Amino acid sequence: MSATDTAHLAEPRPADIRVEAVLAALSDPVRLSIVRTLAADEVGSRPCGSFGLAVGKSTASHHFRVLREAGVIEQWREGAAKLSSLRRADLEARFPGLLDAVLAPAAVA
Amino acid sequence: MSATDTAHLAEPRPADIRVEAVLAALSDPVRLSIVRTLAADEVGSRPCGSFGLAVGKSTASHHFRVLREAGVIEQWREGAAKLSSLRRADLEARFPGLLDAVLAPAAVA
Repeated sequence: MSATDTAHLAEPRPADIRVEAVLAALSDPVRLSIVRTLAADEVGSRPCGSFGLAVGKSTASHHFRVLREAGVIEQWREGAAKLSSLRRADLEARFPGLLDAVLAPAAVA
Repeated sequence: MSATDTAHLAEPRPADIRVEAVLAALSDPVRLSIVRTLAADEVGSRPCGSFGLAVGKSTASHHFRVLREAGVIEQWREGAAKLSSLRRADLEARFPGLLDAVLAPAAVA
């Protein structure tokens, strides 16, 4: 969560996160790689430009937005940067085990 | 599995089941309801016409095909009927916990 709420981009409340939207958001390889990077990241949040995605900036923005609108990630602005982090606790509370199952090593192969 | 291999419709081998395809297949409400019905079904297999889906026959066929091609269900012909069952063991071996997480009560709400 950002220090200022106004810098926080719109996202669904935990109770409004729908499993179909989460599954759709995770069904794309680029979006799955974003989620894997965030899940592996000890810092917990990252600027959008730091993911090393093999797509252009506007396509990347689209993928971040799909993840945010599904409730998978949160995004906020800090100065000129837009940061993202995984809504791990919200997802775990709503759909226990789902994120871990998707991110399990077998699912990478 | 059908008694005759020729009656079995094409599907990916377990090792070829991709998590993105499974997630995409499960991200649709109609397809999710098909999977929930099969998962709750003690018989284990059902004719396509018995799911009580609120969509036309060709749309239903499309949804069954998406699920089969993703590796989520298997389908085979028995006489004039086309039967479906969940590939629960294949999915569990490939992505442990994924199906249970998607089908958990919280994910229904």
